[in-house]
Amino acid sequence: MAVYTDVTDTDLQAFLEAFDLGPVLAFKGIAEGVENSNFFLRTEKGSYFLTLYEKRVKEEDLPFFLGLLEHLSARGIPCPLPVRARDGKLWRPLNGRPAAIVTFLSGLSPRKPDAQQCGELGAALARLHVAGHDYLLHRPNALSVQGWKTLVKACEPRANTVHMGLAQTISTEVKLLEQRWPTGLPEGLIHADLFPDNVFFMNGRVSGVFDFYFACNDALAYDVAVALNAWCFEPDGAYNITKGRALLSCYRSVRPFTGSEVAALPTLARGAALRFLLTRLYDWIHREPNALVTVKDPIEYVTKLRFHQGATGAAAYGWPE
Amino acid sequence: MAVYTDVTDTDLQAFLEAFDLGPVLAFKGIAEGVENSNFFLRTEKGSYFLTLYEKRVKEEDLPFFLGLLEHLSARGIPCPLPVRARDGKLWRPLNGRPAAIVTFLSGLSPRKPDAQQCGELGAALARLHVAGHDYLLHRPNALSVQGWKTLVKACEPRANTVHMGLAQTISTEVKLLEQRWPTGLPEGLIHADLFPDNVFFMNGRVSGVFDFYFACNDALAYDVAVALNAWCFEPDGAYNITKGRALLSCYRSVRPFTGSEVAALPTLARGAALRFLLTRLYDWIHREPNALVTVKDPIEYVTKLRFHQGATGAAAYGWPE
Repeated sequence: MAVYTDVTDTDLQAFLEAFDLGPVLAFKGIAEGVENSNFFLRTEKGSYFLTLYEKRVKEEDLPFFLGLLEHLSARGIPCPLPVRARDGKLWRPLNGRPAAIVTFLSGLSPRKPDAQQCGELGAALARLHVAGHDYLLHRPNALSVQGWKTLVKACEPRANTVHMGLAQTISTEVKLLEQRWPTGLPEGLIHADLFPDNVFFMNGRVSGVFDFYFACNDALAYDVAVALNAWCFEPDGAYNITKGRALLSCYRSVRPFTGSEVAALPTLARGAALRFLLTRLYDWIHREPNALVTVKDPIEYVTKLRFHQGATGAAAYGWPE
Repeated sequence: MAVYTDVTDTDLQAFLEAFDLGPVLAFKGIAEGVENSNFFLRTEKGSYFLTLYEKRVKEEDLPFFLGLLEHLSARGIPCPLPVRARDGKLWRPLNGRPAAIVTFLSGLSPRKPDAQQCGELGAALARLHVAGHDYLLHRPNALSVQGWKTLVKACEPRANTVHMGLAQTISTEVKLLEQRWPTGLPEGLIHADLFPDNVFFMNGRVSGVFDFYFACNDALAYDVAVALNAWCFEPDGAYNITKGRALLSCYRSVRPFTGSEVAALPTLARGAALRFLLTRLYDWIHREPNALVTVKDPIEYVTKLRFHQGATGAAAYGWPE
């Protein structure tokens, strides 16, 4: 949680002159967001979120990310809608950072999603995939097999200091997944980071999907595998097949899986677990002692990976036999 | 800036069952507040601020602080109004902390207040003093002469490591102020910490006064002296007499100063500078390297103190001869 870049009242008022939002009623730094500075902004026109993009989000990716939000909003996905400046720009500089204003969504993120919420999430993810199908811009997945190999190199020397045997676990897994990684699956726009803290619920329904800064083009079923990892494990590490069944059955009620997607699910789930294991391990090893950010425990994903290694088919996740 | 205590969606919803605010629309941790955890809360009834009181604010002081907000709101002061729970309580426990909901104020805090804003602030401070006059609860000023002596003891051994000669400067000043500290001035409810970041402006007028957690009973003119320190110095340390004149003349247009208040102003201003010098020095010396809070530079108040030491009368602050 953090606000990395200070924005004063005069900075804000000068910035807002480029927009058609009326006078400011409220402006507060928000204690969330790992790499960006986020502010709640209320003007006479409504409630908004102002984001200053810090180092992790590259300015050249903003047309993809912000254009995607416009594309999805126009298709009924409850995601933040960018507010264009008077000159039509989707973002403008503010205190040396690219900064964008998006609409403020209503809802709460579930800390411990229940099976019904997992089902709603599954359906929402499938609607997202359908809506993203005709998005014209393209962004490769930087955190797929090639990206994992880069992370492994950066983490391997110190992996065993985090967890004994972890270096071996990772290198074996990367080699195996490189051989087995499925190709030819239906591809499209994926969120790639759809954790519960990136989703809002209201009255039991998904009211918001946000934080698209890992969105890219990849196998749609890989996004489902990420969601299974993120939503369907209990705090003790056990996979909750009731939640998995809800997520998968609601997903396929909106977008059916192909046979090859069903067959690939365990491998995709392994890959997704490895991806979060590696990025968390990287952040853990390279964390700064004084950072404002809480670094997430990578070992959670070793446990999840072990579950996936034992899964012999999609049935292990709750897919109907 | 910080959120010290985590509040999940289920924690929040259980807490709100005790209130009559309807379903939650939004909930965000706010990156401000030095010692409390603050959240923006929007429900169907409106926008609110939820505060969990951490260690600095004592639960036994909450009747004074929250009752004061009700008292001042009822007299037209634009301060947060506590929302009482269905059982009439002003605060209730949430995750082990006393927690209160207050109304959300509109406006922006000025980073560099101009003379007009200083004038508006002066008038608002006088209105606050008038409105607080008949508040029945009483709280002594823990950070007046006796409190300074306690802080001096805790800081003296390391003061010179912060600024050469600082220990001597402080001990001489405390002794002198102890002898000269004025008595018999008009007393009442004072804010005691009315810095620009505790005030909102909208359309050039004061739209919010908040953060009353140092409020207490003391000389009203001492509160004016705090405001002169907080609002009327430039970043380079120079006193801006135009701003001071605006603050003082607008103040006295609402509540006139007595002759003894005018005479006491330079001494009160020295005391106010010493008070912030000491608390900042204490926080500086005792700061934790990993703390989420930015510790403010104490030396700013050494410069201010030197100005006050050279002031021979209220005219030095812009009071008309």
